[in-house]
Amino acid sequence: MADAGWPSFARSLKGVVLDLCGVLYESGEGDGVAIRGSVEALERLRASNLKLRFCTNETQASRGKFVAKLKRLGFDISPSEVFCPAPAVVALLKERSLRPHLLVHEGLMPEFASVDKNDPNCVVIGDAAEYFTYQNLNDAFRVLMSMEKPVLFSLGQGRYYKETDGLKLDVGVYMKALEYACDLEAEVVGKPSLAFFQSVLKDMELQPHEVLMIGDDLVNDVGGAQRCGMKGVQVRTGKYRSSDQWHPTVTADGTVDDLREAVEMILEQRTD
Amino acid sequence: MADAGWPSFARSLKGVVLDLCGVLYESGEGDGVAIRGSVEALERLRASNLKLRFCTNETQASRGKFVAKLKRLGFDISPSEVFCPAPAVVALLKERSLRPHLLVHEGLMPEFASVDKNDPNCVVIGDAAEYFTYQNLNDAFRVLMSMEKPVLFSLGQGRYYKETDGLKLDVGVYMKALEYACDLEAEVVGKPSLAFFQSVLKDMELQPHEVLMIGDDLVNDVGGAQRCGMKGVQVRTGKYRSSDQWHPTVTADGTVDDLREAVEMILEQRTD
Repeated sequence: MADAGWPSFARSLKGVVLDLCGVLYESGEGDGVAIRGSVEALERLRASNLKLRFCTNETQASRGKFVAKLKRLGFDISPSEVFCPAPAVVALLKERSLRPHLLVHEGLMPEFASVDKNDPNCVVIGDAAEYFTYQNLNDAFRVLMSMEKPVLFSLGQGRYYKETDGLKLDVGVYMKALEYACDLEAEVVGKPSLAFFQSVLKDMELQPHEVLMIGDDLVNDVGGAQRCGMKGVQVRTGKYRSSDQWHPTVTADGTVDDLREAVEMILEQRTD
Repeated sequence: MADAGWPSFARSLKGVVLDLCGVLYESGEGDGVAIRGSVEALERLRASNLKLRFCTNETQASRGKFVAKLKRLGFDISPSEVFCPAPAVVALLKERSLRPHLLVHEGLMPEFASVDKNDPNCVVIGDAAEYFTYQNLNDAFRVLMSMEKPVLFSLGQGRYYKETDGLKLDVGVYMKALEYACDLEAEVVGKPSLAFFQSVLKDMELQPHEVLMIGDDLVNDVGGAQRCGMKGVQVRTGKYRSSDQWHPTVTADGTVDDLREAVEMILEQRTD
């Protein structure tokens, strides 16, 4: 059964991990909009015996505010089911006694309330958007250059995302900028890092081959999950591009129009 | 004679190319300050039979304003002796019928007065400093993403420079950011590009082995000149760091405390 193709491998699944933006909803002004059929698809998945988790690189809002937004869009999700980079990096910082200089969106600051930020000995960057001024990036750069062995955490490594008014530069672009400026390699926290996917599996108490990731980002969702031993299916919503099918290193285990189709195909296999 | 070491190869030189910032002066508030002994050193070089040119990646001011600043610092230099990236990229744009979207410092804009900037089909970035806002970088990114085959020119590829109040991020950092965002490779105009050094040699009417470059930047000054067949000597002023002596790929033909010492050693060889 381990080598069965899509959708037949769905028979042996015990859990599903969903990306949020581009799978459940499209971001944009205000809360954004739910993708057609995704509210019902999630309800059908919930009614199955599959374990469910949500895995996002969202770093513009705290997890609480983010889940409240999803609720307004019609999705019934609890904060404990959502894995995002900020709580993961906070755990890392405490584990390694690191005090961060933060270059993150104002909306993310509450996540770091419990963290000692005096006399910083590392830098954490997130999707800071308009907070990525020259001054702020230069400040982060100077903190890194003042360390003997500079440590930079990047909350994801995305190149860009799509909002209703067009493409927006994502955190990965600024990660590359600081990597070049300081001649260092950042530690990525969030998708596609192995540790991030493993923490989700650990919480689910499942083995990688028992879990499917569904996302719109071929490299960070599908590729990241596959590198961890999970299956990965891509939806043709969100940032999907037709050129993804010729990607040089990542091939999805399956491609579907949207979450509704993915859920339909999964549940069909399981009621044979 | 071709393989003679420093300073004995100075006997066969016919020309010298000088970097400006970090060799003649240190930048900072106002005009910055002349480096001790550099005004007299330049006068001594002028009095020799060596041809002289100046080669800089300065892109915060037009060449005219830049030369006026040097004059106030005590350096007698004419604009036609100075090679900088902006006039070079303007020549390239015209040659290739390209219309740029500009992300450069306000002070550099006059250099592009004669260039058609409507309906852009390429992007040019310079050391824009505080003009590198999220919005401005995102605008440049969107212009690139709207092209079938995006073209990005970067006026130099420096990582950072030193001002009197500390380190400042240079254009190369934003070049890397856009390269990653758009999955492209920028064309670098200025040091260390081969074409840029060759244009200086052509203007001097000299062969590469007849010319010495003196700079503070090991990679962009010394390495760039050497790749072109010139000799390269590094001064221990400006952005020089003691770690430069263990650089994995570039080794200077000679290292001196400052321009004064370089000129002394060159002229000594020539009066034997």
